[in-house]
Amino acid sequence: MLGLMQQQSLLISSLIEFANRHHHDGEVVSRRVEGDIHRYTWGDVAKRSRQVAHVLDNLKLAQGDRVATLAWNGYRHLELYFGVSGSGRVLHTLNPRLHPDQVVWIANHAEDQVLCFDMTFLPLVQAVHARCTTVKHWVALCDKDKLPVDSGIPNLMSYEALLEGQSTEYDWPDLDENTASSMCYTSGTTGNPKAALYSHRSTLLHAYAAALPDVMCISARDAILPVVPMFHVNAWGIPYSAAMTGAKLVFPGPALDGKSVYELIESEKVTFAAGVPTVWQMLLGHMRPAKLRFSSLKRTVIGGSACPPAMIDAFNEDYGVDVLHAWGMTEMSPLGTLCTLKNKHLSLPAEDQMKIRLKQGRCIFGVDLKIVNDAGEDLPHDGKTYGDLLVKGPWIIREYYKQEGPGALVEGWFPTGDVATIDEDGFMQITDRSKDVIKSGGEWISSIDIENIAMGHPDVAMAACIGMAHPKWDERPIVCVVKKPGSNLTAAELLQFYEGKTAKWQIPDDAVFVEAIPLGATGKMLKTKLREQLSNYKLPSA
Amino acid sequence: MLGLMQQQSLLISSLIEFANRHHHDGEVVSRRVEGDIHRYTWGDVAKRSRQVAHVLDNLKLAQGDRVATLAWNGYRHLELYFGVSGSGRVLHTLNPRLHPDQVVWIANHAEDQVLCFDMTFLPLVQAVHARCTTVKHWVALCDKDKLPVDSGIPNLMSYEALLEGQSTEYDWPDLDENTASSMCYTSGTTGNPKAALYSHRSTLLHAYAAALPDVMCISARDAILPVVPMFHVNAWGIPYSAAMTGAKLVFPGPALDGKSVYELIESEKVTFAAGVPTVWQMLLGHMRPAKLRFSSLKRTVIGGSACPPAMIDAFNEDYGVDVLHAWGMTEMSPLGTLCTLKNKHLSLPAEDQMKIRLKQGRCIFGVDLKIVNDAGEDLPHDGKTYGDLLVKGPWIIREYYKQEGPGALVEGWFPTGDVATIDEDGFMQITDRSKDVIKSGGEWISSIDIENIAMGHPDVAMAACIGMAHPKWDERPIVCVVKKPGSNLTAAELLQFYEGKTAKWQIPDDAVFVEAIPLGATGKMLKTKLREQLSNYKLPSA
Repeated sequence: MLGLMQQQSLLISSLIEFANRHHHDGEVVSRRVEGDIHRYTWGDVAKRSRQVAHVLDNLKLAQGDRVATLAWNGYRHLELYFGVSGSGRVLHTLNPRLHPDQVVWIANHAEDQVLCFDMTFLPLVQAVHARCTTVKHWVALCDKDKLPVDSGIPNLMSYEALLEGQSTEYDWPDLDENTASSMCYTSGTTGNPKAALYSHRSTLLHAYAAALPDVMCISARDAILPVVPMFHVNAWGIPYSAAMTGAKLVFPGPALDGKSVYELIESEKVTFAAGVPTVWQMLLGHMRPAKLRFSSLKRTVIGGSACPPAMIDAFNEDYGVDVLHAWGMTEMSPLGTLCTLKNKHLSLPAEDQMKIRLKQGRCIFGVDLKIVNDAGEDLPHDGKTYGDLLVKGPWIIREYYKQEGPGALVEGWFPTGDVATIDEDGFMQITDRSKDVIKSGGEWISSIDIENIAMGHPDVAMAACIGMAHPKWDERPIVCVVKKPGSNLTAAELLQFYEGKTAKWQIPDDAVFVEAIPLGATGKMLKTKLREQLSNYKLPSA
Repeated sequence: MLGLMQQQSLLISSLIEFANRHHHDGEVVSRRVEGDIHRYTWGDVAKRSRQVAHVLDNLKLAQGDRVATLAWNGYRHLELYFGVSGSGRVLHTLNPRLHPDQVVWIANHAEDQVLCFDMTFLPLVQAVHARCTTVKHWVALCDKDKLPVDSGIPNLMSYEALLEGQSTEYDWPDLDENTASSMCYTSGTTGNPKAALYSHRSTLLHAYAAALPDVMCISARDAILPVVPMFHVNAWGIPYSAAMTGAKLVFPGPALDGKSVYELIESEKVTFAAGVPTVWQMLLGHMRPAKLRFSSLKRTVIGGSACPPAMIDAFNEDYGVDVLHAWGMTEMSPLGTLCTLKNKHLSLPAEDQMKIRLKQGRCIFGVDLKIVNDAGEDLPHDGKTYGDLLVKGPWIIREYYKQEGPGALVEGWFPTGDVATIDEDGFMQITDRSKDVIKSGGEWISSIDIENIAMGHPDVAMAACIGMAHPKWDERPIVCVVKKPGSNLTAAELLQFYEGKTAKWQIPDDAVFVEAIPLGATGKMLKTKLREQLSNYKLPSA
């Protein structure tokens, strides 16, 4: 027997129509590529999203056709989020930090028909456009009079010129909620990039979950600064959850330096910000010397990579800002776990609470986690045993776009490539990437643990731990460190610093000082590259 | 093109399995019918829900068969929520406050196969069982040794005896998410009761929405006291949202008096409570004379009927508890709107914020509202124009159970039977029930407005406004009032009190003092009954 409830598809168009209807004058503020501040309302976003839909109809784009973006976090990008997906096309957010060859490969693999770009990326588009063979329409996200006359890009159009005169009413299609809505390629460290192809249903379920009090806790009282890029897994879904709740959105545009981010937080009374650790490091680096304070910021979600304990401490203790550790993946829309405490933890002393806060967190309803050994057998949730981390849920992929063969799942679960523990309370802690873990004499050493200890040293700006081949132990860890300016730290002093902080056999064999740690497009350390750089390195003990 | 995300049905069984897996030792505390306090964990709820599923299998219940309850808020009722629906049967929560004849009519209309009851309701079951022709199995929610030997109910079984020895593992069926999960009859003031038949999908979407920060804001840090009965629209969905988030649940059982509720809030450190105004009136009535304070309670959601402004004031100002006005219906699962402020309201003075807080609130994403005139035309959202309120959304019914004809909707919208305004910010305010509004000289007078003014008088315990036939004006309002003990208030004094508080022509023609206002099973005033009682009344002006 079926229930007798109204049948209504979960659609992205319903998000923007809801925001328009019930949060019509809710603010959306953007620092533009042009440098100035642009402000308008959810009502305006709705009107212009509908104009975007008309433009795509006029360009004769079919349902399911891909519309790519190379753009910062800003209002025009937001309009594309709703206009492209809402009208039944697929929004493909390209990562402009990738190498031009990768951009070409990805655009061709996705078979993008339209590519919209911020003027910042004109040189990149000029470098790649001739090789992007499927793109028929190039759109510069700029005013009509800002369109370069001699860009060399055939039929380059101005976004504003395209929207001009289009009707601000649009009859959104009533799609199957499993229709593809958007796609995002992972910046794989090996092999070709692979794409997650999200659906309207997965996006809306994720939007509900992301706004929950135990997740990002998004309400109509929030002013949200997504520093995490909109080309990085849809800014962790914040644009959708903001429309769902009527929250104010504040977009930083290309200005991610500490000063710009700080000023935006203060001038727009931002209550909640989300981003990767590197951005927050720049922000604190700007605030500390000038002894600046936050007047409105209440909490941040930090994800993308494990957050150094020292930074959680700094935000909490020095600035009164609640730091939530988050964990997810492109393949997971992206949110999997958030590190919010439970009722029973509230009476614990601060230092015991901090031990929990350092973990990646516990499942959001919809996601399930498990850890398995090499034989695929379930391992206990005891906070000690670690194994390969597998996930499942309605906003997790079942296969990659154009993937051949049986899909991405192992008996219904998606293997994350992370190694983790899960404790009795469901709190998961990544101990390493499967490929980064150091296997020393049959035991595993977490490269992240080794890095976190180094990051706790006052002279260390950045640290990366990698395994080096060893004749006796298979691998031994070394720690590669960028010193803070003016520091005279020696390798011996740093290794001495490890004493008592970890088991003796886990202390690195060497500390190597480097000018910089190679970073990927999303700010993650590229250990493969670091290993290449150190190809001539010899372990002192080997 | 479809997305490539995992297909996973939204099922009630996944709620209890999630709570078990990730909040295994989360507490569920119940005041039992027996009077004592029972405490166990979400892990225990899961085990016993699975045992319930086995019992239903053993009783040869088919998918979709109805299992009825006559029970207070407590742990066994909670197990039935998950065990019955999770295994594919339909949970039918009967309202024990109804007249026995109504209980019989409803049980027969629903074709209940099993009826589970708390021992409180043994006399009711003894009175009705012979007429409940479809019920094959009667289950007393009690220990084996508490089962009455001479109840007169054929084959009466003890719940605990049925569960004993059943496996605590169960393979929940992978149902279509639109499968019926539970049902609830509305206590219609006219005609026969009608049932909403909820689905797994509608229940899970409602559970996500109900937990949002702008709705009930439910997290793993909460201890929730649902005073609203589990037989009243599934306790507003709290059991589901609690399982979804791992919140602690505290059940009051049958003890809804002020003293019992207060003691439970304090001893279990309740942070959030939900119920109808009458319960809170009893609670404040207990606390005031003894000058008691709350030590943990942060917020309450008040719904079921419009909350008197004086009570919102009392909770806010005297007790520091945030009061949220909620509005919904049995046909809406039940939540439609909640009165949480927006970002832009936070800088308003307290008295302007209070003006907003008195409204029923704004839409939760998923629900949409509109108001229409007699011709069905949309009316403006200006906060002044009122019209018939219509709603739609995935947790709103499209037709009643066994309804004949075209269903319950008018062009896709469900007519609520309420008259309301909606302001520019989307805040809805019920001005009346369509049937209670007083039509005087072509203008409408809201009976609720008239009642609220009377409730603001210190000598008034309860007030009901009804329309009386008038030869010139069609109808004129009178206010029927229950005085506080010892009061000498006169009709003239009370009518004088209206001066300056509403338009002159809206002031009632008379105040009539009564011993009591007739209340329905859910605490709502029965104005039809009141009108019957006053059938011989004559308006002074008529």
